[in-house]
Amino acid sequence: MDMIGHFIQGKLCYDYARTQAVYNPSTGEQSKEVAIASAETVEQAIAAAQAAFPEWRDTPVIKRARVMFKFKELLEQHADKICELIGAEHGKIVHDAAGELQRGIENVEYACGAPEFLKGEFSKNVGPSIDSWSEFQPLGVVAGITPFNFPVMVPLWMFPMAIVCGNCFVLKPSEKDPSSTLFLAELLKQAGLPDGVFNVVNGDKVAVDTLLHDRRVQAVSFVGSTPIAEYIYQTATSTGKRCQALGGAKNHAIVMPDADLENVVSSLLGAAFGSSGERCMALSVAVAVGDEIADALVHQLGERMQGLKYGHFANKDNDFGPVITAEHKAKVIGHIDSAEQQGATVVVDGRHAAPEGYENGYFVGATLIDHVSSDMLSYKQEIFGPVLQVIRVATMQEAMQLINDHEYGNGTCIYTRDGEAARYFTDHIQVGMVGVNVPLPVPVAYHSFGGWKRSLFGDLYAYGPDGARFYTRRKTITQRWPSSNVREGVQFSMPTLN
Amino acid sequence: MDMIGHFIQGKLCYDYARTQAVYNPSTGEQSKEVAIASAETVEQAIAAAQAAFPEWRDTPVIKRARVMFKFKELLEQHADKICELIGAEHGKIVHDAAGELQRGIENVEYACGAPEFLKGEFSKNVGPSIDSWSEFQPLGVVAGITPFNFPVMVPLWMFPMAIVCGNCFVLKPSEKDPSSTLFLAELLKQAGLPDGVFNVVNGDKVAVDTLLHDRRVQAVSFVGSTPIAEYIYQTATSTGKRCQALGGAKNHAIVMPDADLENVVSSLLGAAFGSSGERCMALSVAVAVGDEIADALVHQLGERMQGLKYGHFANKDNDFGPVITAEHKAKVIGHIDSAEQQGATVVVDGRHAAPEGYENGYFVGATLIDHVSSDMLSYKQEIFGPVLQVIRVATMQEAMQLINDHEYGNGTCIYTRDGEAARYFTDHIQVGMVGVNVPLPVPVAYHSFGGWKRSLFGDLYAYGPDGARFYTRRKTITQRWPSSNVREGVQFSMPTLN
Amino acid sequence: MDMIGHFIQGKLCYDYARTQAVYNPSTGEQSKEVAIASAETVEQAIAAAQAAFPEWRDTPVIKRARVMFKFKELLEQHADKICELIGAEHGKIVHDAAGELQRGIENVEYACGAPEFLKGEFSKNVGPSIDSWSEFQPLGVVAGITPFNFPVMVPLWMFPMAIVCGNCFVLKPSEKDPSSTLFLAELLKQAGLPDGVFNVVNGDKVAVDTLLHDRRVQAVSFVGSTPIAEYIYQTATSTGKRCQALGGAKNHAIVMPDADLENVVSSLLGAAFGSSGERCMALSVAVAVGDEIADALVHQLGERMQGLKYGHFANKDNDFGPVITAEHKAKVIGHIDSAEQQGATVVVDGRHAAPEGYENGYFVGATLIDHVSSDMLSYKQEIFGPVLQVIRVATMQEAMQLINDHEYGNGTCIYTRDGEAARYFTDHIQVGMVGVNVPLPVPVAYHSFGGWKRSLFGDLYAYGPDGARFYTRRKTITQRWPSSNVREGVQFSMPTLN
Amino acid sequence: MDMIGHFIQGKLCYDYARTQAVYNPSTGEQSKEVAIASAETVEQAIAAAQAAFPEWRDTPVIKRARVMFKFKELLEQHADKICELIGAEHGKIVHDAAGELQRGIENVEYACGAPEFLKGEFSKNVGPSIDSWSEFQPLGVVAGITPFNFPVMVPLWMFPMAIVCGNCFVLKPSEKDPSSTLFLAELLKQAGLPDGVFNVVNGDKVAVDTLLHDRRVQAVSFVGSTPIAEYIYQTATSTGKRCQALGGAKNHAIVMPDADLENVVSSLLGAAFGSSGERCMALSVAVAVGDEIADALVHQLGERMQGLKYGHFANKDNDFGPVITAEHKAKVIGHIDSAEQQGATVVVDGRHAAPEGYENGYFVGATLIDHVSSDMLSYKQEIFGPVLQVIRVATMQEAMQLINDHEYGNGTCIYTRDGEAARYFTDHIQVGMVGVNVPLPVPVAYHSFGGWKRSLFGDLYAYGPDGARFYTRRKTITQRWPSSNVREGVQFSMPTLN
Repeated sequence: MDMIGHFIQGKLCYDYARTQAVYNPSTGEQSKEVAIASAETVEQAIAAAQAAFPEWRDTPVIKRARVMFKFKELLEQHADKICELIGAEHGKIVHDAAGELQRGIENVEYACGAPEFLKGEFSKNVGPSIDSWSEFQPLGVVAGITPFNFPVMVPLWMFPMAIVCGNCFVLKPSEKDPSSTLFLAELLKQAGLPDGVFNVVNGDKVAVDTLLHDRRVQAVSFVGSTPIAEYIYQTATSTGKRCQALGGAKNHAIVMPDADLENVVSSLLGAAFGSSGERCMALSVAVAVGDEIADALVHQLGERMQGLKYGHFANKDNDFGPVITAEHKAKVIGHIDSAEQQGATVVVDGRHAAPEGYENGYFVGATLIDHVSSDMLSYKQEIFGPVLQVIRVATMQEAMQLINDHEYGNGTCIYTRDGEAARYFTDHIQVGMVGVNVPLPVPVAYHSFGGWKRSLFGDLYAYGPDGARFYTRRKTITQRWPSSNVREGVQFSMPTLN
Repeated sequence: MDMIGHFIQGKLCYDYARTQAVYNPSTGEQSKEVAIASAETVEQAIAAAQAAFPEWRDTPVIKRARVMFKFKELLEQHADKICELIGAEHGKIVHDAAGELQRGIENVEYACGAPEFLKGEFSKNVGPSIDSWSEFQPLGVVAGITPFNFPVMVPLWMFPMAIVCGNCFVLKPSEKDPSSTLFLAELLKQAGLPDGVFNVVNGDKVAVDTLLHDRRVQAVSFVGSTPIAEYIYQTATSTGKRCQALGGAKNHAIVMPDADLENVVSSLLGAAFGSSGERCMALSVAVAVGDEIADALVHQLGERMQGLKYGHFANKDNDFGPVITAEHKAKVIGHIDSAEQQGATVVVDGRHAAPEGYENGYFVGATLIDHVSSDMLSYKQEIFGPVLQVIRVATMQEAMQLINDHEYGNGTCIYTRDGEAARYFTDHIQVGMVGVNVPLPVPVAYHSFGGWKRSLFGDLYAYGPDGARFYTRRKTITQRWPSSNVREGVQFSMPTLN
Repeated sequence: MDMIGHFIQGKLCYDYARTQAVYNPSTGEQSKEVAIASAETVEQAIAAAQAAFPEWRDTPVIKRARVMFKFKELLEQHADKICELIGAEHGKIVHDAAGELQRGIENVEYACGAPEFLKGEFSKNVGPSIDSWSEFQPLGVVAGITPFNFPVMVPLWMFPMAIVCGNCFVLKPSEKDPSSTLFLAELLKQAGLPDGVFNVVNGDKVAVDTLLHDRRVQAVSFVGSTPIAEYIYQTATSTGKRCQALGGAKNHAIVMPDADLENVVSSLLGAAFGSSGERCMALSVAVAVGDEIADALVHQLGERMQGLKYGHFANKDNDFGPVITAEHKAKVIGHIDSAEQQGATVVVDGRHAAPEGYENGYFVGATLIDHVSSDMLSYKQEIFGPVLQVIRVATMQEAMQLINDHEYGNGTCIYTRDGEAARYFTDHIQVGMVGVNVPLPVPVAYHSFGGWKRSLFGDLYAYGPDGARFYTRRKTITQRWPSSNVREGVQFSMPTLN
Repeated sequence: MDMIGHFIQGKLCYDYARTQAVYNPSTGEQSKEVAIASAETVEQAIAAAQAAFPEWRDTPVIKRARVMFKFKELLEQHADKICELIGAEHGKIVHDAAGELQRGIENVEYACGAPEFLKGEFSKNVGPSIDSWSEFQPLGVVAGITPFNFPVMVPLWMFPMAIVCGNCFVLKPSEKDPSSTLFLAELLKQAGLPDGVFNVVNGDKVAVDTLLHDRRVQAVSFVGSTPIAEYIYQTATSTGKRCQALGGAKNHAIVMPDADLENVVSSLLGAAFGSSGERCMALSVAVAVGDEIADALVHQLGERMQGLKYGHFANKDNDFGPVITAEHKAKVIGHIDSAEQQGATVVVDGRHAAPEGYENGYFVGATLIDHVSSDMLSYKQEIFGPVLQVIRVATMQEAMQLINDHEYGNGTCIYTRDGEAARYFTDHIQVGMVGVNVPLPVPVAYHSFGGWKRSLFGDLYAYGPDGARFYTRRKTITQRWPSSNVREGVQFSMPTLN
């Protein structure tokens, strides 16, 4: 069985004391074994990062950026291999993995612009002959802890920005699908990154807690579920670190009576079932305003869902693949059961999915549930599976209240043709990422990603301009030069300013 | 007869060789006499500005900004007097003058933020131990030449920004209504501005040409008609100055079939007839898409225009006042005649305006002309009077083509409820200031004002961020410090970065 | 005895259950009584703020800014009264209070520029016909907790920025000198702020904990000592709030052999003893590089310190006043004792200060201690009194190591004429606010204030650009308009773009 | 004989009516023939650009940026060939050509960041429910006219920025060394740029005037000598275009008595003689403050200049190559003669340069002239050859006056160790690009390049942030949505904002 290790000080390394199985979710078979780092191993990674910092911080920013230019080239050259690695351990179809990689590469492209976004502000004459300016200096060693659902994209939200700002990085990816993440480290080394600047440790809570408590680690970026995000945020801040911890979501789309229904249905299919709904921006609740549009929506969705295909990750004809584990499959099905028991109508039922030849894969079919209400467990919690729930309301106001009352505030969307409705919605909705006729309003890499309410702990968001601010510490210099011998004998009258 | 002089080196002064009458357009009577500056007088103003420059440029920016804070207070305290001065010489009703003043004050408020918008950019380590930063230094002496139609607002677009950036200023306002402008100079002195930093000269082409050809003047801002703007731009640039010259306009509103007609009619009344249409952002052409909306629009406008009142500037019940001169009144009426002769329909006719008691005032009534076409003289040229022309087209595309083909590209507007139509329009229309359901889309003071095509010559717009850039010259410093005796004996290893 | 109450919903109010004495430190006599808020009172303030929020957030930013313009005017008009209120309860001399007020007003001036600094970023065509932009929306109710040493300036770092960004504010000032702070609330109401937007509660840990645990409070800004800052940060973040908590300091000046000693001595006197050293930016340690400069420095400081006067706050001839309480006086003297016992030399001894007529005031005289070393308690801890300690080192490297090893990293300064030494120092020193020949490098209001290491918990600094970011929540909108009926019949070819 | 043609609509093309010889300056032999474009050919290029514009402007900015990412890769892959092409026609040594290319590539790297620097500003609620934002739209067809001395770098200052902003480009490079420039066009096509977006025409005044007068051309960027720059600026602006025209230079270094002379001499050798002094940033005048440093400087320069080698471009051991033409060689020598005749001392004489085997090459040896004064012709004019002149002054003030009085204000430098002298110099010197101990203070690509006085006509500089502003036109949209049917039945109370 292949062993997956760590990447420390520019080298793959292994500690065999504890390991864990890695599965192919499309088949349900174990494919590899991953080393579970001890505290000592994590500390080695931190030490490597710490040692690499003084030289890396002094490297001119354009040289740091050029490592990212080269890294982008390499990611594009090895795209097929990366998508294969993602699919084999996560299960998402290769075309979906290609989309994930592309969104990740966009963050590398943004990181290439570091000379621009790292500029400080210079003020002449803040007082007589006194100047003042700000510098944005790197923090030192920073850590990232990333989830299984985007093993390539979410790490790429973090370390390119952190590293191009002059920091050294320790990444702990998900132990469920670590191979693609680890491969990024090799490419980054090929791109010319000095050893020690980027390190990857695989592991579990031991690794996480070591990172959280080590005083050398200056900052932690996390993406995962809300309970863990909250734990990460409280623990990291209690040891004086800065922290951004992104958690769960329940993303609603309001479907207004004037919406272009054809467009709604087409775009909801991808937004709800793509990647088996295992996305923190998955659109999992459609809120139909009025029964007329609700009936039409449910009807058309039901018809179009017949055509959706799921199965093995390598088959490009599939629309989506399995969920990540057998346990997770059971949990998703449990949510559907619970909705049904609490009175909702399961219109399209994906609970008995078993594609031929892959009966042991962790599949759940696309599921549509109508007549869901806000007191149901399946509504309150994040399902993270290919399940779209429909809620019916009478007014736009009622729809907005529903969204604003929900614990999470990651993404949302309104479908309408009306300028005023869109403007009112985007202004008053308590959600961080808002779409108008765009069901997956993930900000592009040159903006920043973050939700409101319990979807994000911290004040600065992931990647983009906020990422640059998060990974740097402001220093303000105020400077006055006393008059000197050097200009002695000089007439102090101004030279003629013609 | 009261004499209006110049304001040079902090003092009112006069040169009597040439003078010109100033009229009250509401009555047609002469009210004052204005001195017309000789070249020598203009040169004195330039010399005063030049002499004040070295000290003013070295004054910390926050102190320069505080003069603007105080100036704002004084403008608000003397608002009634300023509006009276505007009305008596320009003719606009006092509530309209108050609006003008308010928009002017907003530019003073923006100028108060100079410490923020004058920040340069600082880059650490552009090479090993080499830093580089930009400074935005003032130019020296700059000049403004402003039109009669906004004797307070347009000067306030210019000199507060120029002065807060560290420049010294020579303003040549319109000789038709100079009193309110001159009063600004007195208030600015009261606000604490050192003598010589702001100077006003009244005059004609002699003054203009002296400013344009004097090598000490570094930049010229102009607002007026397009032929003069073009002359100013060519002359100023030929003597090596930077120049921004804002000219004429022909601002169209597209009325889409889905527009809220009540809103269209209400807002068009103000946009077309306010200030007798003597605004470069006046909405003078309504382009109705389809005969149905055109008929309704013309009908409702016709009805509502019955209620419009015009007359003496001091009567707050009036909606608008006279035009600026007897000559201009004749020109406006000539345009209406010409449209009629070329086949358009004069629906509401303002040619015979003579409010009781003010029969000698320069009044033109609100005029509505339907069935105008793009080959008519009244369409091709700027009328600058209370005349709204209606063009009928079959499609939005046709309406946009009309606008894009016109010589001018200052402002425009679309009336619609449709998000897509608005987005397509704002993207593709060849106009600098674009409204969506906003007929007078004058940018607020923290954005910048400027048209496209022959409505503006130059690359930087008036006021706001562009104003700051226009009134400063970029300087880039690149700095390396060779290692020195001072740190001799020092170990060059880095201090521990924990 | 005058009672000091709270300011809630635009009105002064009182709860008498618990009160505490307020003293005049110049005389040691009690002057007033301050109400100590119950949890219920604090909750009323929060409720008032919460109720005022929906309307305030929707008020156009320029109108919010105009409240600040007016507030600045009122602060300047009432400057004498404010300085008197500060002096009577804090003890600082009126000219020092005037300086405090001025630095506070600068933050109000910066807040006037909100229309500029609240601009979001707009991106056209992030995808085909898809636009995206960011908005910086207010958080809701935010709280400030401020220290005794700057009862006017530190509150002015916080609430003007928070309020102009659209938030509502609950301030808990120091219960030792609350009168001047409370007066700010009255002026802000006069300036036109709607009731409920700004509220002040006086109190102790009960008030603090109520603010920290209430879910309606979205953010907390704190300035005080490091242990409390750490408690505030951990508690606030554990309830999901964003938090910036500024703590203690130990600010070193490196005196290089090439420094202009006259300038060093003059500027150190103010930086070390001004406000009795009760400033988080007080310069409390001079690090002399080489014995030659050390001897000269100690000698000249000793001489010049003879001329320093301390006494009653109202006497302008005094250089500094008393410390805040009898307990604090004892603590400062204890630090001097301890240094002496640990082997340092007390060169000028302020332990027996008793100005005639004010023998009961809490005075400590200016104290100079030589031969201090880094293991002494008086070096490790913040003294917060008029005590300047001198450490002697052999090299600049050694001096920097000392600073980088200290727990705190608030401010620091180098005295030199050498460009290279200054650049190396500013680059590598682990301190947030760095002076070059400027001993109190407090950033101006248009930059941001914050230390490194255990001097600040959080990632965004106080006031300036960071303040704006801290008091707003990013929202990113992604918008696509499907093609619509409205443009139906339109040819989709582009209009001619000449 | 090889023929060099044009690059229009993605294809090489030729018009044979007029041609001109291209020489190898290292040997003095003709190597190629270049087509000289007729007006018709230039118009074809403009038409191709115009036709490509509508689609290119609508291409999402990230896709435009990705063409630049790929272009950078290709430039790096073909670096050797590019340097060879430069050397063969310009004569600069291959290592110098590599430096030129690298500075050019940096501009391509900056252009990759277009999604960041093209962001507009978004303001919520500029009035009640009214939003406003700016967009920076491309201009259309823009033209560049570039000089012989940097056939690769100067074009790369212009077209990558213009094109990534969405414009289409017509470049007229120098007809003396067009091959390397033309090769850039081929690489850009390989990088994926659509045909017609980038076009190159070779030619003379006919081509220039056609570009200047064609109404379809919206903007012109020029780099060359001051008389031509002035002509370009006046002509382009007279036809309503925006224009930036960079002209000549006379760059002075002040050598202060405290300068590190070893560093001065080393860095001056490269700055004065590199590329035979044919750089607009060449350091051609050393101003020594005091005879002591002057004597030492002249002595050491004289010694070190013995070691300088010049010769054939392909020999890497050479320090510099020939000048561009036989005529230019004669002009440079004429300047040396004239200085000598006017009383200066030729310390090192390069007038009789004739490297063995390359006697017909256009060589001038490194020349040092002492005792130059400001009335000499060789001081007033730009020599553009390997000639360093020394002026001796008594004070720094005198040195600064000299620089401020000169017609040009491109670059300058001070050599000192003193912070105060450097700060005073950088503040008050009337020059656009200022070095402190950096003799060639060319701003990096993320800042902007431009001189003051008669070194630049226009207000926006080349490349960097100014480049982005120059190649875009501001459009400001103001938007209000009237309340609509769509939200009918909605309660207008706000949803709960927790």
